[in-house]
Amino acid sequence: MEIKKEKKITGKTIYNGNILRLFRDEVEFPNQHKSAREVVEHSGGVSVLAENEAGNILLIKQYRYPVDEIIYEIPAGKLEIGEKIEECASRELREETGYSAKKFSKLFEFYPTPGYSTEKIYIYQAENLEFVGRDLEEGEYIEVVPKSKAELKELFKAGKIKDSKTLIAVMYYLGDF
Amino acid sequence: MEIKKEKKITGKTIYNGNILRLFRDEVEFPNQHKSAREVVEHSGGVSVLAENEAGNILLIKQYRYPVDEIIYEIPAGKLEIGEKIEECASRELREETGYSAKKFSKLFEFYPTPGYSTEKIYIYQAENLEFVGRDLEEGEYIEVVPKSKAELKELFKAGKIKDSKTLIAVMYYLGDF
Repeated sequence: MEIKKEKKITGKTIYNGNILRLFRDEVEFPNQHKSAREVVEHSGGVSVLAENEAGNILLIKQYRYPVDEIIYEIPAGKLEIGEKIEECASRELREETGYSAKKFSKLFEFYPTPGYSTEKIYIYQAENLEFVGRDLEEGEYIEVVPKSKAELKELFKAGKIKDSKTLIAVMYYLGDF
Repeated sequence: MEIKKEKKITGKTIYNGNILRLFRDEVEFPNQHKSAREVVEHSGGVSVLAENEAGNILLIKQYRYPVDEIIYEIPAGKLEIGEKIEECASRELREETGYSAKKFSKLFEFYPTPGYSTEKIYIYQAENLEFVGRDLEEGEYIEVVPKSKAELKELFKAGKIKDSKTLIAVMYYLGDF
């Protein structure tokens, strides 16, 4: 069986917000049947796996309103329009943890929820870190929690890494790939 | 610093669709400032890491409209209201690949995008598989592509596993955790 694409027939913006746009398209399936696709448009996110000078990975703790929970994450943020991915990685690492890094390299790019969102998340690895001071945005309440490899393994084993990008980055760091 | 929750002040449903609901809440930050949170409500997803009788992992190829790409995924589906997670895992494995399994055990539960969606995704491991016949839903065009461990490693290394749940499941399978 050959997998075919769906054809867009009509499209409608339902909501145009600060961090996302919701649209609803009428589409045609390969068998000519018609249906609707509800899609969240998001500009994408960039996240950073960063090991500091003491050999600890920089995790952050942050309250996430949609899931009503304080969770562990790697530093990350929304890609601004026109912004280069590496610049975004550098900016978010600096703002959220206070570290600058000499070298950034791409580890992953993935779709968190390709069934209903356009969002792509990038994971970069940051190397040669230096502490230069934090610079949080209004409304960001973030605690930096550096974790050793053993501590990360414990958190992972206990199911306490619950965020997709962080799970992927931590598994990459812990595993032998 | 202690991380505090945000308080909901008012809430408004913007769109109530087939697979998601979009709402916009006015919230109060710990510093008493007010802001809005745009949130996608989703009932959650269940996915399955399944190795067939030949020792191959059952991947599927599927066109995903939001990202306009045919991507590899593990079998998965939306959790129906009132449905038990293990039943959903069993149903989706059967519908999409034609396999039933004697044993299901939970590997992961994670938030794909906790910044703007309530969705939680579960990953179950299925064992003791038996082929009983596929049963696709209307509008599902899915190709089953069983992959050996070596083939999975190759896909992973080449950056061809792009879906969050699939990346986590494949890393779990390939890694030494």
